[in-house]
Amino acid sequence: MSPGTIIAGKFMAERILVIGGVAAGMSAASRARRLAPEAQITVLERGPAVAYGACGLPAFLAGALPLSALRAHPLEEFTERRKLEVLTRHEALEIIPSRRQVLVRSDGRPITLAFDKLVIATGAESALAIPGADHRLLFRAYTWEQAERLDRFCRGQRPRAAAVIGGGYIGLEVAEALAQRGLAVRLFERGTRLLHHFGEEMAGLVAQAAQRHIAVELGVAVRRVRAPRAEGVRLETTAGDCDVDFAVDCAGLRPSIGLAAAAGVALGSTGALEVDERQQTNLPAIWAAGDCAQTRDLVSGRAAWIPLGPAANQQGRVAGQNAAGGSPARFPGVLGSLAIRIFGLEAGRTGLSLEQARTAGFQPRAELIRAEAQPGYAGHRRLRLALIYDGPSRRPLGCEIVGESGAVMPRLNAAAAALTAGLSLDALELLDLAYHPDLAPLYDPLLIAAHRAAKPR
Amino acid sequence: MSPGTIIAGKFMAERILVIGGVAAGMSAASRARRLAPEAQITVLERGPAVAYGACGLPAFLAGALPLSALRAHPLEEFTERRKLEVLTRHEALEIIPSRRQVLVRSDGRPITLAFDKLVIATGAESALAIPGADHRLLFRAYTWEQAERLDRFCRGQRPRAAAVIGGGYIGLEVAEALAQRGLAVRLFERGTRLLHHFGEEMAGLVAQAAQRHIAVELGVAVRRVRAPRAEGVRLETTAGDCDVDFAVDCAGLRPSIGLAAAAGVALGSTGALEVDERQQTNLPAIWAAGDCAQTRDLVSGRAAWIPLGPAANQQGRVAGQNAAGGSPARFPGVLGSLAIRIFGLEAGRTGLSLEQARTAGFQPRAELIRAEAQPGYAGHRRLRLALIYDGPSRRPLGCEIVGESGAVMPRLNAAAAALTAGLSLDALELLDLAYHPDLAPLYDPLLIAAHRAAKPR
Repeated sequence: MSPGTIIAGKFMAERILVIGGVAAGMSAASRARRLAPEAQITVLERGPAVAYGACGLPAFLAGALPLSALRAHPLEEFTERRKLEVLTRHEALEIIPSRRQVLVRSDGRPITLAFDKLVIATGAESALAIPGADHRLLFRAYTWEQAERLDRFCRGQRPRAAAVIGGGYIGLEVAEALAQRGLAVRLFERGTRLLHHFGEEMAGLVAQAAQRHIAVELGVAVRRVRAPRAEGVRLETTAGDCDVDFAVDCAGLRPSIGLAAAAGVALGSTGALEVDERQQTNLPAIWAAGDCAQTRDLVSGRAAWIPLGPAANQQGRVAGQNAAGGSPARFPGVLGSLAIRIFGLEAGRTGLSLEQARTAGFQPRAELIRAEAQPGYAGHRRLRLALIYDGPSRRPLGCEIVGESGAVMPRLNAAAAALTAGLSLDALELLDLAYHPDLAPLYDPLLIAAHRAAKPR
Repeated sequence: MSPGTIIAGKFMAERILVIGGVAAGMSAASRARRLAPEAQITVLERGPAVAYGACGLPAFLAGALPLSALRAHPLEEFTERRKLEVLTRHEALEIIPSRRQVLVRSDGRPITLAFDKLVIATGAESALAIPGADHRLLFRAYTWEQAERLDRFCRGQRPRAAAVIGGGYIGLEVAEALAQRGLAVRLFERGTRLLHHFGEEMAGLVAQAAQRHIAVELGVAVRRVRAPRAEGVRLETTAGDCDVDFAVDCAGLRPSIGLAAAAGVALGSTGALEVDERQQTNLPAIWAAGDCAQTRDLVSGRAAWIPLGPAANQQGRVAGQNAAGGSPARFPGVLGSLAIRIFGLEAGRTGLSLEQARTAGFQPRAELIRAEAQPGYAGHRRLRLALIYDGPSRRPLGCEIVGESGAVMPRLNAAAAALTAGLSLDALELLDLAYHPDLAPLYDPLLIAAHRAAKPR
């Protein structure tokens, strides 16, 4: 936006309200402040903390750092420097678009806040829908409050055996954190593999590593959570009962859309809030961003709902800029790029998996490579890389990497950039990636995979 | 190439000759073998070893590994499995294109070899042109033989003080290797900074780190090498005389084009052999690849000569495929992507530097970022990143990164892919790069730099 388009007077009376103060919400509010110095900007956060690194919660649970370390900034950064009104422990109860008001619970009492512009960043919540999902010994670790409660329980009760429901990346991270605390951990995954965003081969490598530290039970669904004893909890699973001191629900998320949907905000095909490229909803003056909002998969062009931090922040920034009346910003979509470090391995993926590609109508193939992250004479850091591509068009669609320390990010990020740009296999094969014996192999595995995939058959 | 286009009979009599057996040459020969199973393929190598990792020579000089570890494969891989005729210590003396013959010195005697197709991969050589450049105590470390000779000298004579001429990446690596052997090292760079491929800010960080281990003398040119004493050597420099036990010439390379030029192979504007996208020279049946050949800078579109390993291998493969009559392969060009690990730092660059961009007619600016390679709560690995872009068009042109362990490659490779694809600043800013507290920062510094650069001014 050129500075000339800001007319201070225009924003004098403008009230920008943001519901949700974690990633997307605080990004939206901060961005809006930059563009609308005179606006009155208020952030409502249901929980006790704003702008914290939720991705660091497993490290907190492992005892590696205090919860407070996850704050991106001290609160004063937002209240004093950015002049945002930040209301924690304030829960939005109802949005009334016609009156541009939000009904809020504040210390148990309802208050009404008016807005000129509204950004909804209500995030995501547990999707677990089984009897006992609200049991007090069934914990969660998606939010500050949830992680704090689980940690307090572990300190106070000194439990010895835990179950984790769900073998996605959060389930694995929580299981590892609990194992690092000395707990015996059983992990239940109802699918046939861990990390369903990854292909079988890659997920299998992670499962092998995990099984050295926790008990992994694949193809086992938890049907019910009960408490047959005074202490502890029983999971009734498709493979029998499992008694543990407590359990953690990491079975997956769904977008928190109740508040918005009740106000008439339209939902997309994924069940998340539908927004355009400017993060605007179907309602005037209402934007949505982050885990509550639908987005687009950059490879397939299809609607997608992928709750991850970086996109939440970027979407928040776009929503904040547009809500503040800045020059129109757009968010093009995501690749679902994801990296984890787990049980001594690193794993990363971007773009489409084989299954996602099939669903999207491609005829995908995977080129699977075993390689090292540097020349053998300089060290051994093994990795496996799968390049997913469309058979008929030879278009790269996705990439998955599992390997030892430092093996993933250098080529995962290159793949993400290549997928965003729509580079062909031929172009990918000849990418000029930097080489150094200590830092990279002469032929990067990504290039080798592209070379093999590009071969005529 | 589709298998059907290979007619075994056609290649029965074909003789493919490759001059040079390090990176480009062995890649060419190996690729040709794949496509022309019946051809007679001969590699001539002046030195004692083929297909070794020249980039690992500094690690050998540091005493970190034996020279033999740098062999990509045992010789039998080439002679037995790939059925290549590999003639080491064979120096090509003359190419006679009209007769399709090469005159070769073999054990001191001249022999004549015929070819149907010729690949020239003669590499590069020292460009130092001062009196005394051939002094016996002025060593080099570009080749297997040179490094072996230097190592033998150090073992036998136990020198204590060394000078390194040239502060490019090879000069720095050799200086560090010698310092690690316990030598006192003075490094002379006639330019005003180390690593002239990097901007001043980045080069300055490396210089700071280097100065803790070696004496760095910038803006000092070596004019002459002499031996005023029985043992040791004197460098006459623009800042006075420097007496050391020996010196190493790392002052830079020039393409080894004498043999080809004498045969009528045309030179490009950079002084290297001119080739088309298929690595073919102006002469029929003669290709060139690697450090002796000119290529194209992918960002500026201009002719470039950048002697680096990965491109040499890729060009060799393209030349080999085309020489063998496979389906036409092309090499599009380079970004000059480069990474080093030096004096406890990592440094990497890709695309154009500010100076290169200016020379190429852009009006470049640099967006300089200080950042960390992961969130502060998970660890501290500092880095600085410079994004070079064209002011008027806002097109990204290059990227430089200097930082602590693991800081460089993840974003350098993403930048390389983005530059190859011609992504805009806006697209770069919104790249979906993977995030994990242990592996990457929430906002990648590359994206932050693009965001700042994209701002209207």
